[in-house]
Amino acid sequence: MTGEHAFIRALRAIACDPAARGLADDAAVLVLGGETLVLTLDTVVEGVHYLPGDPPADVAWKLVAVNVSDLCAKAATPVGCLYSHALGEAEWDAAFLAGLDAACRHFAIPLLGGDTVRMPAAAPRSFSLTALGTGPRDAPVPCRTAARGGDRLWVSGTIGDAGLGLAAARDRRAGEPAALARLVARYRRPCPDPRLGAALAPLVHAMMDVSDGLLVDAARMAEASGAALRIALDAVPLSAALVAVAGDTRQARLAATTAGDDYELLFTAPAEHTARIRETASALDRPLTPIGVVETGHGLSLTHDGEDIPLPRRLGYEH
Amino acid sequence: MTGEHAFIRALRAIACDPAARGLADDAAVLVLGGETLVLTLDTVVEGVHYLPGDPPADVAWKLVAVNVSDLCAKAATPVGCLYSHALGEAEWDAAFLAGLDAACRHFAIPLLGGDTVRMPAAAPRSFSLTALGTGPRDAPVPCRTAARGGDRLWVSGTIGDAGLGLAAARDRRAGEPAALARLVARYRRPCPDPRLGAALAPLVHAMMDVSDGLLVDAARMAEASGAALRIALDAVPLSAALVAVAGDTRQARLAATTAGDDYELLFTAPAEHTARIRETASALDRPLTPIGVVETGHGLSLTHDGEDIPLPRRLGYEH
Repeated sequence: MTGEHAFIRALRAIACDPAARGLADDAAVLVLGGETLVLTLDTVVEGVHYLPGDPPADVAWKLVAVNVSDLCAKAATPVGCLYSHALGEAEWDAAFLAGLDAACRHFAIPLLGGDTVRMPAAAPRSFSLTALGTGPRDAPVPCRTAARGGDRLWVSGTIGDAGLGLAAARDRRAGEPAALARLVARYRRPCPDPRLGAALAPLVHAMMDVSDGLLVDAARMAEASGAALRIALDAVPLSAALVAVAGDTRQARLAATTAGDDYELLFTAPAEHTARIRETASALDRPLTPIGVVETGHGLSLTHDGEDIPLPRRLGYEH
Repeated sequence: MTGEHAFIRALRAIACDPAARGLADDAAVLVLGGETLVLTLDTVVEGVHYLPGDPPADVAWKLVAVNVSDLCAKAATPVGCLYSHALGEAEWDAAFLAGLDAACRHFAIPLLGGDTVRMPAAAPRSFSLTALGTGPRDAPVPCRTAARGGDRLWVSGTIGDAGLGLAAARDRRAGEPAALARLVARYRRPCPDPRLGAALAPLVHAMMDVSDGLLVDAARMAEASGAALRIALDAVPLSAALVAVAGDTRQARLAATTAGDDYELLFTAPAEHTARIRETASALDRPLTPIGVVETGHGLSLTHDGEDIPLPRRLGYEH
């Protein structure tokens, strides 16, 4: 057990309120005055979650987007956010604020407050944002523990773009410039859609966001649900930009499904909801693709072109 | 205008939702599903808000307490908190968690979630906590803008202990060990009382917490209210421990009223509520002391033993 795992175990022992959901979920959920509130808090650290050279407006966008993604996974509609800003160089900070403003408008999540702190000289900075949303009115708040044998497994959007975009942003991938630019944009400006999570709430069993890699997040869903997830690697949706840069080999698909930062939705639903799920995708213009099935048992397994294949050693970003 | 002031001005332009209260208040206030929600987010940074040698359990306690103090100022009852932990040395982190647990229990504010992040090697760490509370049911949520001419100005507890405690913790004050220990404890473990804020809500006009120094916070209340505040320096309540270490001179009183970290309540109330305010103090065993008056006009003025005295150059911790 790493130090971080031991720490999180100790943290779980403290967070024993039911609203904390054992800290095993994407957000806290509590019922107050007839409303279901969903609360999440994410931090980005310079040199860990972003690089000093990254465009500050994109760092701010991502800070908002990763929290909105947690709300989406809970089918919550954004209400507002608060954030803590570590002051740095004035021009950088102004550009950061512009990106924050753009993201708050895009996601319709007004900035309600927060804190501004000074940092010791030359210290890497970090930014925390907490987002508040209201849960669905016509369905329970989805969680990652409810996958059931017989469900289909679905994913929204395309997978792996951000991971390849990160490599491109670090000049570690060559390729067609327009395709690379699309991938970098997917890394820097994730666009979760709260309408999608809300529309799916009455149709799904389990739901979570994909942030650390499709395979590792699917493995977590399998474990949390006490069910087995079987993913058809060849069914995982890839963007044209990704295929243009990385091809469509088994290796490229394994790389895509173990890369982080997708901020897409992973969910399971009974087969009889398939038509309504497809209508939702069409109504919101957000692709939703069946990529596997839920079976009794436990753990994650993988097929490619109908053939069982071993899991890669590394399933995603583990923390 | 410093860079920080320019930044905060730009931030206010973004935070134009009414719930943000122009970022000029202690917390965001929004009405949702028939409940009034109060949300605050504060960050503490190693080397800025605490020293690497400070006991980690006290750092955690203070992180919770400063947020609870914001809830108190809004007469809110704590509902829960989320926090972001920057991982460091395992033993330090475990002690921090123990302090967090103790504070969450003391203030009855369950930990509901948060984030755990890694830091670059040797980077100073920071911790953000967001606290959620519910506002009073029988009164409007107090704000700092409502002081009215004719009001009395009150403060809870004693003033200046934490500032002197900080000096003592840094070995910059000599004195009777028991008195010094009490002052250091006041610095490290502030104890705002949410019951007090809630009980005062129907009695007050303006209310805020004193965190940056009594004088600077009073000046902010005067400015926000468009009223003049006159404080009788000799009426400001001092603890026996403070007087034992620093004496009771005008200089000691100016030092006490310009020191930060009190986390007491500053409020104004009409004179006819005086008896009920004294009953509240007595019922909750929390001293409440009248220290001045609100007059028409603007700004802060000071008397000592009935004589007008000039404001000190520095009113408190300005940021």
